[in-house]
Amino acid sequence: MKTNISAAALDKMNRKTKPPGSLGVLENVAVRLADLQQTLEPKIAKKRICVYAGTHGVTSEGVSAYPGEVTGQMVLNFLSGGAAINVLARHGGIEIHVVDTGVDTDWPDILLDQPNFYFRSVRRGTSNFFREPAMNQIECEQALEVGREQVRYALDEGIDLLGIGEMGIGNTTAASALLVALCGLRPDGAVGRGTGIGDAPLQRKIEVVASAFEKYFPLCCEPAGLYWLRVVGGFEIAAMTGTLLEAAKARLPVVVDGFIATASAAAAFSIDQKCREICFFSHRSAEQAHGKALEALKVEPLLDLKMRLGEGTGAALAMPIMEAAAKLLCEMATFDSAGVSGVIDGAR
Amino acid sequence: MKTNISAAALDKMNRKTKPPGSLGVLENVAVRLADLQQTLEPKIAKKRICVYAGTHGVTSEGVSAYPGEVTGQMVLNFLSGGAAINVLARHGGIEIHVVDTGVDTDWPDILLDQPNFYFRSVRRGTSNFFREPAMNQIECEQALEVGREQVRYALDEGIDLLGIGEMGIGNTTAASALLVALCGLRPDGAVGRGTGIGDAPLQRKIEVVASAFEKYFPLCCEPAGLYWLRVVGGFEIAAMTGTLLEAAKARLPVVVDGFIATASAAAAFSIDQKCREICFFSHRSAEQAHGKALEALKVEPLLDLKMRLGEGTGAALAMPIMEAAAKLLCEMATFDSAGVSGVIDGAR
Repeated sequence: MKTNISAAALDKMNRKTKPPGSLGVLENVAVRLADLQQTLEPKIAKKRICVYAGTHGVTSEGVSAYPGEVTGQMVLNFLSGGAAINVLARHGGIEIHVVDTGVDTDWPDILLDQPNFYFRSVRRGTSNFFREPAMNQIECEQALEVGREQVRYALDEGIDLLGIGEMGIGNTTAASALLVALCGLRPDGAVGRGTGIGDAPLQRKIEVVASAFEKYFPLCCEPAGLYWLRVVGGFEIAAMTGTLLEAAKARLPVVVDGFIATASAAAAFSIDQKCREICFFSHRSAEQAHGKALEALKVEPLLDLKMRLGEGTGAALAMPIMEAAAKLLCEMATFDSAGVSGVIDGAR
Repeated sequence: MKTNISAAALDKMNRKTKPPGSLGVLENVAVRLADLQQTLEPKIAKKRICVYAGTHGVTSEGVSAYPGEVTGQMVLNFLSGGAAINVLARHGGIEIHVVDTGVDTDWPDILLDQPNFYFRSVRRGTSNFFREPAMNQIECEQALEVGREQVRYALDEGIDLLGIGEMGIGNTTAASALLVALCGLRPDGAVGRGTGIGDAPLQRKIEVVASAFEKYFPLCCEPAGLYWLRVVGGFEIAAMTGTLLEAAKARLPVVVDGFIATASAAAAFSIDQKCREICFFSHRSAEQAHGKALEALKVEPLLDLKMRLGEGTGAALAMPIMEAAAKLLCEMATFDSAGVSGVIDGAR
């Protein structure tokens, strides 16, 4: 069944008034969406991005340009509509869910009533993985469940396309450690300047990542993705992995944002290869290891705009392009219907 | 004045709640739009793409996969809303103007009443430039004027962002010849498979382009862009050049679509370097020479989706991204307004 829809969608695309393949990546996106939705008329009407926020203990190692409290401050910014993700989501007609997976802050009571805010704190920040595992097994499972829950909401509410993004000062360090462990990147190749650290913090960050790999190696018998999420991950990273795992079961397409979200996908792929089929990688970020990680995962992103902000900003720009791809398959005329001549004999 | 707005816009962008530079290419787009519109609140509300169509005499050399009559048939498709550009323009909230610059067809009378169709035919197709110059000097000036006229309409009607796209079976051959002459590409590097020709037509196409370069060299004393437009160009290509020349005077931003539109930009840059400031290159197409042409012109495109369709389809996808860039500069909160902490001392 699955293969039949793909083939039929490709055939439909090839009858459209354009040379075969000339819509490039959009054709592939449209065919994949048709397959996931099991229809030749795929649609992306309702779009939502879940922005998962979490505090990272590893910030005490001096690996970040900004203080840890910025994580909570940015959550407030998301909820008052002033962050980049808010502007891009409004522009693209995308809903936002903001999810506290473990932010070290006291929220004003009024916040807890905001309908698009989900207070699902596992703990007020991970432990510093340079010294001890970031979380224990129960906490890791809780964080995954926070992400799974959002997929159930999405399915209940008729969301056609879900996006995952994040906020967490220190989380490029966690993501780098995950990519060293899961994609075989070298520590100095996996670590970048994040929000913009100088040379000394960069060296420290490489040291923290390299020593964590040594410290927690070898793998135990869990799936590697699950193990490394627990020892060097973050609550928001595990939540994104949970979203991908649950979405794969329901075959709900998910747009993966940037560097950190890609690390969560690396963990998801290691746990369940079926996650590959539902993931659309939005962009190649300017964080130096992101291109390498995408290559290691053998995936091609849609955009390359030298962004490195996270929050779901890359996903927000990619979603309307995917929506356009679906519309091309649904709305374009065919050579027959438009009375357009085909290829000259012998020209190919 | 000009520099002041750029500097002020960059300063404004740097106060937004994000690490400096983390919105990548979008920051540069926003600053350029601010400069062109001379405001710190740039807006892209009204968007329009002009699709210029023209017939090419050089098709008689067997350089195309599709017969020449497809040019007129696709114009009808544009006007009935079934082409890829229609779907993408509707999706992006973009108006379409379809301009006949010289299509070899008899239009049904009813077409001439369609408000978004502009019948501005210079002649029913260029001459075959393999044998004689594509057009004479008066025709070339007329075709440029067709493109200039559209800028005046755009300004009168409050268009914030204009796009240029085209339809013309055979026009990758003309564009390749222009890029050989104006950007120093080698004939075999400048010629690609266009709509999808096989090896034999590809060899013929290279031969036609190489021999045209030899035949019409050396340059006379006109600007090279003008000269080569006349001898190897097309009416729709000259019209796009005319749009860029006129838009540069008014400092109206223009999105350049794909390979053919880039050739028209090469001609425009050769005639008036000021055109650089208003051009935004939408994407790198899959036509093999396009990347080289963009490099030769020292410009970076926004997207790389392996498209190779023309019609303005790349421009239609890039425009909403530029609109998003402008909104980021206008709508994002600042560190101060959102109460978000700045960089840690010594972290940079």
